[in-house]
Amino acid sequence: MFFGNKYAERIAALREFMASRSIDAVIVAASDPHMSEYIAARWQSVKWLTGFSAEAADVVITACHAGLWTDSRYFIQAERELAGTGVVLHKTRMADSVGIPEWLAGQGVRTVLFDGTCQSAEFVGSLRNALGDEAVLEDFPDFISELWDDRPAVPFNPIVTQDVESFGGIHRKDKIAWLREWMSVRGVDSMLLTALDEIAWTLNVRGSDIEYNPLVISYLLIDADDIVWYVMKDDGDLPADTNDSFYELEQDGVRIEYYSNIDYAFTSQQRMFVDPSTLNYHIFSLLGDIELVKGQSPVILQKAIKCPSEIESLRQTFIEDGAAVESFLYWLENELANGRDVNEWQASEKLTALRSLIPGYRGNSFENISAYGANAALPHYSTPVSGSSQIYRRGFYLSDSGGQYLTGTTDITRTVPVGRCSDLEKEDYTLVLKGMIDLAMAVFPEGSTGGQIDAIARQPLWQARRNFGHGTGHGIGFWLCVHEGPQSIRQNLNPQPLMPGMVTSDEPALYREGRYGIRHENVILCVEKGSNEFGRWLGFETLTCCHIDTSAIIPELLGAVEIEWLNDYNEQVYRKLKPYLAPVVCDWLSEKTRPIEI
Amino acid sequence: MFFGNKYAERIAALREFMASRSIDAVIVAASDPHMSEYIAARWQSVKWLTGFSAEAADVVITACHAGLWTDSRYFIQAERELAGTGVVLHKTRMADSVGIPEWLAGQGVRTVLFDGTCQSAEFVGSLRNALGDEAVLEDFPDFISELWDDRPAVPFNPIVTQDVESFGGIHRKDKIAWLREWMSVRGVDSMLLTALDEIAWTLNVRGSDIEYNPLVISYLLIDADDIVWYVMKDDGDLPADTNDSFYELEQDGVRIEYYSNIDYAFTSQQRMFVDPSTLNYHIFSLLGDIELVKGQSPVILQKAIKCPSEIESLRQTFIEDGAAVESFLYWLENELANGRDVNEWQASEKLTALRSLIPGYRGNSFENISAYGANAALPHYSTPVSGSSQIYRRGFYLSDSGGQYLTGTTDITRTVPVGRCSDLEKEDYTLVLKGMIDLAMAVFPEGSTGGQIDAIARQPLWQARRNFGHGTGHGIGFWLCVHEGPQSIRQNLNPQPLMPGMVTSDEPALYREGRYGIRHENVILCVEKGSNEFGRWLGFETLTCCHIDTSAIIPELLGAVEIEWLNDYNEQVYRKLKPYLAPVVCDWLSEKTRPIEI
Repeated sequence: MFFGNKYAERIAALREFMASRSIDAVIVAASDPHMSEYIAARWQSVKWLTGFSAEAADVVITACHAGLWTDSRYFIQAERELAGTGVVLHKTRMADSVGIPEWLAGQGVRTVLFDGTCQSAEFVGSLRNALGDEAVLEDFPDFISELWDDRPAVPFNPIVTQDVESFGGIHRKDKIAWLREWMSVRGVDSMLLTALDEIAWTLNVRGSDIEYNPLVISYLLIDADDIVWYVMKDDGDLPADTNDSFYELEQDGVRIEYYSNIDYAFTSQQRMFVDPSTLNYHIFSLLGDIELVKGQSPVILQKAIKCPSEIESLRQTFIEDGAAVESFLYWLENELANGRDVNEWQASEKLTALRSLIPGYRGNSFENISAYGANAALPHYSTPVSGSSQIYRRGFYLSDSGGQYLTGTTDITRTVPVGRCSDLEKEDYTLVLKGMIDLAMAVFPEGSTGGQIDAIARQPLWQARRNFGHGTGHGIGFWLCVHEGPQSIRQNLNPQPLMPGMVTSDEPALYREGRYGIRHENVILCVEKGSNEFGRWLGFETLTCCHIDTSAIIPELLGAVEIEWLNDYNEQVYRKLKPYLAPVVCDWLSEKTRPIEI
Repeated sequence: MFFGNKYAERIAALREFMASRSIDAVIVAASDPHMSEYIAARWQSVKWLTGFSAEAADVVITACHAGLWTDSRYFIQAERELAGTGVVLHKTRMADSVGIPEWLAGQGVRTVLFDGTCQSAEFVGSLRNALGDEAVLEDFPDFISELWDDRPAVPFNPIVTQDVESFGGIHRKDKIAWLREWMSVRGVDSMLLTALDEIAWTLNVRGSDIEYNPLVISYLLIDADDIVWYVMKDDGDLPADTNDSFYELEQDGVRIEYYSNIDYAFTSQQRMFVDPSTLNYHIFSLLGDIELVKGQSPVILQKAIKCPSEIESLRQTFIEDGAAVESFLYWLENELANGRDVNEWQASEKLTALRSLIPGYRGNSFENISAYGANAALPHYSTPVSGSSQIYRRGFYLSDSGGQYLTGTTDITRTVPVGRCSDLEKEDYTLVLKGMIDLAMAVFPEGSTGGQIDAIARQPLWQARRNFGHGTGHGIGFWLCVHEGPQSIRQNLNPQPLMPGMVTSDEPALYREGRYGIRHENVILCVEKGSNEFGRWLGFETLTCCHIDTSAIIPELLGAVEIEWLNDYNEQVYRKLKPYLAPVVCDWLSEKTRPIEI
C-alpha cells in the first residue's frame, strides 16, 4: 500500500529535488499569496503532494520525515486521507503542540526551502528565530511548479462591478477618498492592500477566482495620486465582462496592471502601510528600504460594519434565502414521508437548485454540508458525490449552507428531526437551541468583545457538562467571504469590540462522535439597544428567516423568555415568508411554526 | 482659597526645587519601590503633595501646570480633595485619555525628573518613547525627601513566620527548591523577586509594613547556592519577634541583608530572571550588563493556587468570619429596631470589634466600607471617623469588609435593607444577586479565563440595561493581600485561565449616584466539576458563609434554580454557623434564612 501510492511518489520526487539543491527541509503551505482562507486550485499544493484536501495544513518534508500540521477540526480526515502516503500527522493547537519552526530546530535543520509567496512574513520571522542566524532560508517562488506538471495557472475569471445604487454599498470613489484621508491623517504616503476581500470591497469588484468566494486574485496599491490594481494575468485574454469592468474602474481613476508586475511596483514609495497578517514574505522581501507602517488594515473594520443600504439588502436577502431553505425542508419531509429514498448528496443538490432560483443568486457561499446521523458529528463534513449516506427516518439531518447574492451572503444551519429522537438527542437539541436563543437575546454594553459574550451561548451546554469545539460566531461579508473579521464570537482574546452593523453567525452546536451532530445557526446583526446613564447598549437583530423545528424540543429546559422568543421568531418567519412560498409549503410552514406552550 | 492652601504651598516649593535644577517637569507617583497596590506612609507623596488620598494616582508638575492622573473610581473624590490646590484632574482609562508620556510630549517638555524607585521600568520606557532620545530623564531616588521634612522612614515592623503545619501552606524549603528547579529548567542563574506578596509567600513571612497588607518591605535574590533577603532597615533596631524569625529563616539557608544594600547586589549574576511589572526603574538601571530573562514571576500563579491545607484553613476561616458578620448584622438590626442612633463609623467599629474576637485575627484586610444610602453609590467610599452618616430606617446599608487571619484572608460585602425599599431598589437588589448566584453556579471548561465568564454575572443586569463599572472578581491571598493576581473576573483580555484552587471574589453591583448602591460579594473557590468526553469541567465552591437577606428580593426575577441555590445557601449558612453564634443571634438567623417560595 505504501509504495506505489501516487502521493508517496510525489514526495519522493520532492526529496530528489531537495537533494539536488542540498536542502534539508522543504515547507509546503496550503496558502496563496494573499493568505486567503480558501485557495484556488493553483495553490492547493498540499493536496497535490499529500492528498490531504482540507484547508489549514502545512507540510514539511525532510530526507527522513514527511509531516502534516493541522488542527483538531481535521484530525479524523487527515488520518484517513494520509493513509498510505507515509505522511505523519502533527496536531496543532494542542497543549503539547510543537510548531513547524520549533520542530525544524529540534531536527537540527540548517537549510530550508519554501515558496515565499505562500508564507507570511510573520512565519518566516518565527522560522529565523527558531533556526538562528546561520540557517539558510531560501525563498523559491512557485518551486512546486518544478514538480507539478499540470499545475493550474493563476486564475483570471470574469470580473464584474457591484451596482451599489441598486443592491447596497458605498461607491468606490468614496471608499478610496476615505482611505486616502486615513493615510493622510497617519502620515502614510502609500498603502498596499494584499487581502483579496479587502481589495474587492474597496474597488466594488467581484470575481470567481476562488470557489465560493467572489474574489479576484490581485494586489492594490494606493497613494495620494494613483491607485493601481495588479490584476491582469500574463496570458492576456480578457474574460467576458471584464473589459467593461476595467473601463468603469479606469473612469474612477483605477489603473489596471499585470498581476506579476507587483514585483516591480516598489521603487519610489516613502512611508507605506502594509498589513503583515496578509502580506506574503516574497513581497515583504521586495520592499527593501521602504519605511513600513504595519498594522491591521483599516478596510477590515470598515468592511465588517455594513452600511445602511447593505443592511436593507441583507434583510430582504435573508427572507428570500430562508424561503428557499423552507421549500427544501418541506421537500425533504415530504419525500421521506412518502417513503422515497433521499441521500445526503441528493438533498444537497435539491437545496442548491432551490437557492439558484432566487434572483441575484451567484452561487453558494461554501460547500453545502448535508449530513445525516453520525456524519453530522463532523463539523466540517464534506458530502461525497457518490456513496453519500441515505437519510433514514430516525434521528437528525443537518444542513449547513449559504448563498452568494448580488444583495449579500447568507449562511444557515438547520438540524431537523427526520424521525424518532432519543431523550438525549432531544436534550442536546434543546440545550444547543437555548444557547443560540440566549445569544440572540443578549444585551451588552458598547465595547464588549465576542470573547466576552461567547459564554452566554455556551452556558446552557456547560451546565450540562457539554461543549462544542469551534467558535460560536464568525463575521460574514456582503457578497463576499462567508468568513470575515475582525470580530468573532468565540473563546479567544480577540480585542475587537462588536459594533452596530456587524454581521455575525450565532451557531452553537453539539457533536457526539459516531452518533449524531446538532448545530443551530442564525445570522445576527449587531444593533443599538438604546442608551441610558449606564452607557450605550448593543444587542442583535436576527437576519436569518427560517423556522426552527419545535418537535424535538423539551420545553422544560427552556425558560419562559426563551420560549417567547422562539414562538415570536417562528411566527415572524411565517409572516415574512408567506409571500414567497407555494401554498402547500405555506400550509406546512403554518403547522411548523405553531407556538409551543410555555 | 487657592493661596495659603498647604498643598499649593508644597507645589510651589517643588517648583522652586525644579527651577533650581532647570527641570521642566517632575513626576510624583503614588507607588512604592515594589509597585505595590497599597503603599506605606513613606511613599504617599501624592497625598503629601496634593491632599489626594486614594491609591492609583500620578502627579505631574510643570512650571505652569499641576495635574493628577487617576481613573473613574476616584473622579468624585479627586474633584473634592483637589479643590483649592490648583491641581487639575486628568481622567485615565477613558476613550480620549492622554497618558502622562503623551501629555508631556505635547507640552514640549525636555527635562523630566522622577523618583526611579517609584516608577516601573516599563513606564520610563514609554516616557523615553514619547519624549525622544534627546530628552533628559533624571532618576533622583527619594527626591521628595528634599522637600518633605517629616517624611516617614522605610517601615520596619515586626516580622513573624507562618506556622504552615498548623494553619496551612507549604514549607519555605519546598518553595525555594521549587523555584530553583524552575530556574534550572529555564537556564536562569538567579532570580530577583521584587513584589512584596511574592516575597512573603516564598519565605512564609508576614509583617505589617503596609496597612491591611501583612507585608515586609524587602527584596529577595535567589540563585542556586544562595538566597538573600534584603530586609534590615538602616536604623538597626530589630522589632519584636523579628530576631526569632530571622533565626528560623537562617536555619533554612536564607541570608539576611540590609534593604538598602540591594543597590550593591548586582555584580556577578549571569542570566537573571526579573518581572518587569514589579521591577522599579532604579533597580533596573543598576542591572547594567546582566543578561535579563523577563516574564511574569512564577510565584504569582503558584501563590494564587491555594494548596489543600490552605483550602482547609480557608473553609473554617470563612465560617468564623461569617459568624462575626452575622453578629454584626444582628446587632445593627437590633439597634435600629430599638430606635438607637447608629452611624456608619459606629457600625464599622462594631464590626471590627466583633471580628477581632476571632482567634488568629491579625487585623482587617482593607479599610471597612460602611456606607448608608447615597454613600454606598461610591464603590470606594471611605467612611469618615467623625461626621459619618447616620443609618436611617429606610433603603440599604452596605458593608464591605474583611479580616486578616493566621488562617487566611476574607472579603465580604452584604447590602441589607434597613427599612422600606422602593420597587426599583428591590429590582436592582434582585438583579445584582441573580448575577452573583449565576456566577457562583457557573460551570465552564478548563482553560476558560475570567474575562470569558464575567458576562455570566452581568447578563441579568445587562438585560435590564444596567451595569457596574468595576470588575466582578479579584484574586485573594492567603493571609496576604486582599487583591492578588494573576486571575481576575472582569471585562478584560487577561489570558490567565481560572484554575482549581484559585480564590476569587464574586461581587456584582449596581450604583445609582446620589441615591444608593448595592453590592453582593461572596468569595468563591475554583473547583473541579468532573471530566467527561467533552473535557475537564470547573466551577466554584462558595467559601463565604453569611446569609443573604431575602426580604428585598423580587422572587419573580429569579429562576427556579437560582432560588434553589439561595435557599440551599442560606440553610447551609445557618447549619454551619450555629455552633459559633449566641442563641439570640441563632434564633434571628434561623428566621433570616427561612427559604423563599419558588
